[in-house]
Amino acid sequence: MDQDLFAALDIGGTKIAGALVDGDGGLLLRTQRPTPAREPGRSVMRAVTEVLGELRAAAAWPRVAAVGIGSAGPVDARRGTVSPVNIPGWRDYPLVDGVRAAVGELPVTLVGDGVAITAAEHWQGAARGRGNALCMVVSTGVGGGLVLDGRLHAGPTGNAGHIGHISVDLDGEPCPCGARGCVERLASGPNIARRALENGWRPGPDGDTSARAVAAAAREGDPVAAASFERAARALAAGIAATATLVEIEIAVIGGGVAQAGEVLFGPLRRTLAEYATLSFVRGLEIAPARTGTDAGLVGAAAACREALARTP
Amino acid sequence: MDQDLFAALDIGGTKIAGALVDGDGGLLLRTQRPTPAREPGRSVMRAVTEVLGELRAAAAWPRVAAVGIGSAGPVDARRGTVSPVNIPGWRDYPLVDGVRAAVGELPVTLVGDGVAITAAEHWQGAARGRGNALCMVVSTGVGGGLVLDGRLHAGPTGNAGHIGHISVDLDGEPCPCGARGCVERLASGPNIARRALENGWRPGPDGDTSARAVAAAAREGDPVAAASFERAARALAAGIAATATLVEIEIAVIGGGVAQAGEVLFGPLRRTLAEYATLSFVRGLEIAPARTGTDAGLVGAAAACREALARTP
Repeated sequence: MDQDLFAALDIGGTKIAGALVDGDGGLLLRTQRPTPAREPGRSVMRAVTEVLGELRAAAAWPRVAAVGIGSAGPVDARRGTVSPVNIPGWRDYPLVDGVRAAVGELPVTLVGDGVAITAAEHWQGAARGRGNALCMVVSTGVGGGLVLDGRLHAGPTGNAGHIGHISVDLDGEPCPCGARGCVERLASGPNIARRALENGWRPGPDGDTSARAVAAAAREGDPVAAASFERAARALAAGIAATATLVEIEIAVIGGGVAQAGEVLFGPLRRTLAEYATLSFVRGLEIAPARTGTDAGLVGAAAACREALARTP
Repeated sequence: MDQDLFAALDIGGTKIAGALVDGDGGLLLRTQRPTPAREPGRSVMRAVTEVLGELRAAAAWPRVAAVGIGSAGPVDARRGTVSPVNIPGWRDYPLVDGVRAAVGELPVTLVGDGVAITAAEHWQGAARGRGNALCMVVSTGVGGGLVLDGRLHAGPTGNAGHIGHISVDLDGEPCPCGARGCVERLASGPNIARRALENGWRPGPDGDTSARAVAAAAREGDPVAAASFERAARALAAGIAATATLVEIEIAVIGGGVAQAGEVLFGPLRRTLAEYATLSFVRGLEIAPARTGTDAGLVGAAAACREALARTP
């Protein structure tokens, strides 16, 4: 029987999802559990094992060639451990060993969630066919990953592309990571909303103070709301330009909830990118919205183990 | 006869140097010409051809396996052209064609000067044996290059690692490149000296207002001089931390005239690096001075063509 499927796990602070993914990125079977994020580590692992159990019960399971895991970070792919910020029960938790115990002899690949999203966009989305790309998620946080020389660049520990925590404002406001002026501190959804509120924007009658509500206000002409998105766009532009200047990328793909704001974000982003991407070899850099949808984490986990398998001699 | 040598060219705004380099990075023959930087492009090419002529006249020339060129940037390795900022007569100049015409059938590799220095440090210097490294030159400008997954990462156009022109201060002072708050704008030798003078530092009786004189004053306890180096160190720290966060490097190697300041620079650099390199996977990042000396550009050009040759199937 052909081993033409991949088993994918997408592990976050809210849910643990699993799927069997075919060679075109299609999902044959999908299941999920809420993440018991406040419970001890073994309870979280039990939820993962249950998800894997459902996948293993499928008639198609013998066709699985490899297992891919995309996890909230930081991860340590070398040691097979994870320490997701939003899952306190897991610190240097041996996730790969736990998964191996459930799946037997199959090869297992672990990457951070930003790397997984990048693998998905490179396999099936807006970065398809691109030799050098940055893919980002701008949402509650800001994450990302890199494609270099046509291959996923996960880095030795599986965390490369962490653009949310590069500083673009070295004297800027403290970031929870410990640094100052990080891209995430300026451009994440909660920070867009916070800045708008601090500068006098007020929500409508529904009391919605999310970045989505700020985006709606900006579209209706509210200058404070628009200014908060412009500030986020400038931070993203500086971070994207820095990435291009450091590793030479031809396209930056942006997904996540904040990217749903559309031109409220992408308009000022394209404009300010030209202010920071000034050297000849980065001037042609494209910006594009992500194409893979809500299952990007699963498709990406499959893509990551598919690529690891292809590299194995 | 074994083809065990490399011909190297190091092309800058001041001099054009050439050498035959052996398999251990030793220079068998070295020659140079002043760069006729204010003359037409063909005069500059003539100087290159003369340097190559001296190399070709050597008895060892038949042992040359490949030719490496490290050039002031920007370069375009894909098209084989260069547009060095300090050589106005060369704009999209077909340097590789010109060199090919002089050397016949030998393979020719073109990289930017920051990439060449990195190749030298990876082959024979402080980044030897390292899988992932950033190598930098802090001098009149700030340049750099990357080693990723054990290989030189030149990027598609040969310019990757351009850390001098990433913005670490998105609202900062304008940089001649067109952006704001670039690492070079904060950390190059001339900018260290300018900032010290602006803040009230005064040179000694010899009137020396170079960064070297500022470093000497800092060592003698001048607080304004020390503060200017500390500001440069902070900018370098933010840029190095950004690089590590984006691509995962284990060591940053720093050479160039400003690095000669020693602890006046490296002390605050190590201290401020801890403020920006906060995520688990970058916390162990090492900082080291460069080991290759004044001929690093030639050794690096040889290393770059040596590595390209090793990759050729």
